[in-house]
Amino acid sequence: MAAVASFLRVDSFESHPSRYRHWKLSIAGDIATLVMDIDEANGLRSDYLLKQNSYDLGVDIELHDAIERLRFEHPEVRCLVLTGGQPKVFCAGANIRMLATSTHHFKVNFCKYTNETRCGIEEASAESGLHTLAALNGTAAGGGYELALAADSIALIDDRSSAVSLPEVPLLGVLPGTGGLTRLVDKRKVRRDLADVFCTRAEGFRARDAVKYRLVDVSYPRSSWEPSVQRLAQEKAALSPARATQGITLPPIEVEVSEAARRYRYADLELDFAGRTATLTVRGPDASAPVDAAALRAEGAGTWSMRAFREMEDALLHLRFNHPDVGLLLLKTRGDAAAVLAHGAALAGLRGDWLADEIHHYQARVLRRLDNMSRSMFAVIDPGSCFAGVLFEAALAADRLYMLDDPSVTIAVSEASAGSLRMSHGLSRLVNRFSAQPSDVDAALATNGAAISASEALDLGLITFAPDDIDWEDEVRIAIEERASLSPDALTGMEQNLRLVGPETCETRIYGRLSAWQNWIFQRPNAVGEQGALTLYGHPEQPRYDWGRT
Amino acid sequence: MAAVASFLRVDSFESHPSRYRHWKLSIAGDIATLVMDIDEANGLRSDYLLKQNSYDLGVDIELHDAIERLRFEHPEVRCLVLTGGQPKVFCAGANIRMLATSTHHFKVNFCKYTNETRCGIEEASAESGLHTLAALNGTAAGGGYELALAADSIALIDDRSSAVSLPEVPLLGVLPGTGGLTRLVDKRKVRRDLADVFCTRAEGFRARDAVKYRLVDVSYPRSSWEPSVQRLAQEKAALSPARATQGITLPPIEVEVSEAARRYRYADLELDFAGRTATLTVRGPDASAPVDAAALRAEGAGTWSMRAFREMEDALLHLRFNHPDVGLLLLKTRGDAAAVLAHGAALAGLRGDWLADEIHHYQARVLRRLDNMSRSMFAVIDPGSCFAGVLFEAALAADRLYMLDDPSVTIAVSEASAGSLRMSHGLSRLVNRFSAQPSDVDAALATNGAAISASEALDLGLITFAPDDIDWEDEVRIAIEERASLSPDALTGMEQNLRLVGPETCETRIYGRLSAWQNWIFQRPNAVGEQGALTLYGHPEQPRYDWGRT
Repeated sequence: MAAVASFLRVDSFESHPSRYRHWKLSIAGDIATLVMDIDEANGLRSDYLLKQNSYDLGVDIELHDAIERLRFEHPEVRCLVLTGGQPKVFCAGANIRMLATSTHHFKVNFCKYTNETRCGIEEASAESGLHTLAALNGTAAGGGYELALAADSIALIDDRSSAVSLPEVPLLGVLPGTGGLTRLVDKRKVRRDLADVFCTRAEGFRARDAVKYRLVDVSYPRSSWEPSVQRLAQEKAALSPARATQGITLPPIEVEVSEAARRYRYADLELDFAGRTATLTVRGPDASAPVDAAALRAEGAGTWSMRAFREMEDALLHLRFNHPDVGLLLLKTRGDAAAVLAHGAALAGLRGDWLADEIHHYQARVLRRLDNMSRSMFAVIDPGSCFAGVLFEAALAADRLYMLDDPSVTIAVSEASAGSLRMSHGLSRLVNRFSAQPSDVDAALATNGAAISASEALDLGLITFAPDDIDWEDEVRIAIEERASLSPDALTGMEQNLRLVGPETCETRIYGRLSAWQNWIFQRPNAVGEQGALTLYGHPEQPRYDWGRT
Repeated sequence: MAAVASFLRVDSFESHPSRYRHWKLSIAGDIATLVMDIDEANGLRSDYLLKQNSYDLGVDIELHDAIERLRFEHPEVRCLVLTGGQPKVFCAGANIRMLATSTHHFKVNFCKYTNETRCGIEEASAESGLHTLAALNGTAAGGGYELALAADSIALIDDRSSAVSLPEVPLLGVLPGTGGLTRLVDKRKVRRDLADVFCTRAEGFRARDAVKYRLVDVSYPRSSWEPSVQRLAQEKAALSPARATQGITLPPIEVEVSEAARRYRYADLELDFAGRTATLTVRGPDASAPVDAAALRAEGAGTWSMRAFREMEDALLHLRFNHPDVGLLLLKTRGDAAAVLAHGAALAGLRGDWLADEIHHYQARVLRRLDNMSRSMFAVIDPGSCFAGVLFEAALAADRLYMLDDPSVTIAVSEASAGSLRMSHGLSRLVNRFSAQPSDVDAALATNGAAISASEALDLGLITFAPDDIDWEDEVRIAIEERASLSPDALTGMEQNLRLVGPETCETRIYGRLSAWQNWIFQRPNAVGEQGALTLYGHPEQPRYDWGRT
């Protein structure tokens, strides 16, 4: 009785508080409150209802929008209270029928996006001091509790019915794959046997045990819930640093869309469906860099450092969700390397200014989305390109770098590569690249923005290949054709194992290990077969398992 | 045209050099040479030929046997040379037809076993100073090169034809899953873009480029190959510590086998097929502990600390391969806790004696096989049990610990839990357990072998549940039934994410991340479907891929 999997084209990854269907954002002083109150009839597809405050991608796009707006539009906010707007249930997690009827590809991308949103909540705390308090005024089940796990602190109402739970394993035969397992033991440090009990107990634990097992930080009875949460939020806000009193506005992204292209001011995404490749071309600045903090504020989200990255992010998300068959992404740039470096230097010079810092963190997030693409990526460094500074970081995210050996083509490494644009495991892309020889990192950084020729870049280990103009066209073409001919599954697995070297963090464990196991389980008949648990959830029939353990 | 997957029952995991079909072990002074010369007609199944020095599980069982025997029977050996006995090809990796016709379950267990053997080679170097030199006198492809990656150093013959390669992604649509991807970038620190090129290039690289890209350490021309390898082996041996001149003998394991049980002297594995559970009962010592190094040597592999763990290991391997439907392993003990502690204290008191140390490392390896079971595990601590010292470590490997709250039932924590029996990530099981509160580790260790009651154990956080005798039977029975009813896939994924907390190593990345991606790929039609690459390898047809990237 497996329903036919539905391919969903996602029209937009943008939203605005005035258009939220599922959340209510309010701000009072330095405390923001985001109330989850899902409009069950307004899911992204019409063949499921978002009952019990359960979510789909559309709900998460709004959540992501809210977090980004708090960072840029409301720097006065120091504590975000996440709470529920429906009785009894804070959030029941990802909608099961949506999951059961989605393609494998969509499920995996949905999980990746929601994971990025949750890692973004944690990053807002770490980088911008935005404390998030999950105020669970009802049951938080599955992805609902996983959302809470992304918060800095969790309060649960003590009312004899509300509980936290991860019922995925016992009820659905899948994992709490939105970071739940990892955050339970690695972030909240729940003892592994108690985590085991919790994750196999569909009903979860109510307040008293939830506190005892470290599943939540605190509980309050219903009678004093609201003032207690309010007081806790004020305490947390008081502990967070003040950033600024006045934000900037994030305007809608302007894009011209055709069947095979998305064209923005500073970026183009062009799709070659027959070749199964896409080309993302980022253009350098067309205006001089802001001279001081006031100028940067005046430019706001229009400043190149911000706008180009918003456009890149939008292009990457569309590629991920809407063009699964496009397996290879070519990264190109066009423009003036000196201008790119000047904009980077301007941001770096303003380090400590809240907006300059936020833009810098935002660039880092977009670059991490790039690291986390399940597509092969080649940087193509050719005439007219401007792979300098922060744009060279994008090239370092690629699996290979091809650079034309011609005097007119150069790259430049700036202090943008010195570590502040960290990858998921906390290392810079240069440190990640040169694990065999840390002194190679220093050698690259010592070039300090100077133009680097192809042969120098080869010597410095910054690029992979440097064909001359006789070989360039054939060599790049053949590499592209070869790559596009390989098994897309094997490439995804290979890239997941080669891209990040060395230490691991909660974040890398979520994307590298937890997601891999979830992907595996999402394929297995025990979950998605006709008699699988995910397929049959909500039906009277019991799932029937193939009991073989692997 | 997918062949029907064959279920293979593995009759024995034992071997002996006198019976090797695929390897030749010779020892000269402090250098051992293990020549891979696979008898193609003597695979474990008769429906494939082990051409081109390709291997199956039977080959790896012999390799594992050889490594263990070098550690125990030949402590005079300080360098092991791994080389090939056939012209042109050192080793072509795991046999493709064997993989293409095996069940998913067998493939995954086969990979896990071969990974454990390779991690064992590295552990023999780290713990016992046994340097392994892979002397590649022909092409090392796929698993053949992955075997070399497990060595401390790699020499490749420079003869214009021999190469190292990982052709899995381009030719088979699967990963080099025997640690290849991880060891390439994390152990050998090959630059990620060069690793990308290497892993997508079916023909690999010959000597000159292989040295340049750090894929091998050194190359020698054919004319000087043998003396060069010999000299290098001597150099490496000279750098390794001397251990001892005389080893002990590893006798065959004595076991009485029936359909539902394997009975050894110190261990019983009993299978409940209807309940899909197995019980592993380990018995404590029936003789006093060796009083000194000479006594330990005289007891040899018969000493309880060794024999009980050899029997446990054999039982665990049979459970893994031959009883995939048995999803829950109950761990029990019977005997005298004081005797267990006395044997542990004797070993600890002999620290520095080569044999005592080898036995200790061996116990650690068996316990890591236990951590790495894809089965749920409950420790059942009941009357007559002796969960003390090293046996309590086995209990700590379980997902949950149930202990009867009765004065007659106690556990004991000894210095066996202080860190020397490390898990794959390098931490002790207590440190892994108490990540939230490191002082809990000290509190447990401070009990120093004293009998700990159920209520004390609960307070110390050492056990999960302590029902009294009124509740015991029902509570344990219900827990077992519940566990055995859950999705086996979801449990495997859950346990993989909860059991190891904190830091990661090559080893955890291989089992946790690389294996998860390989499991996923092993399920996908692009590999194992009728037109998948693994299915069609060796056939004239080209694979046809579903291009969707996830």
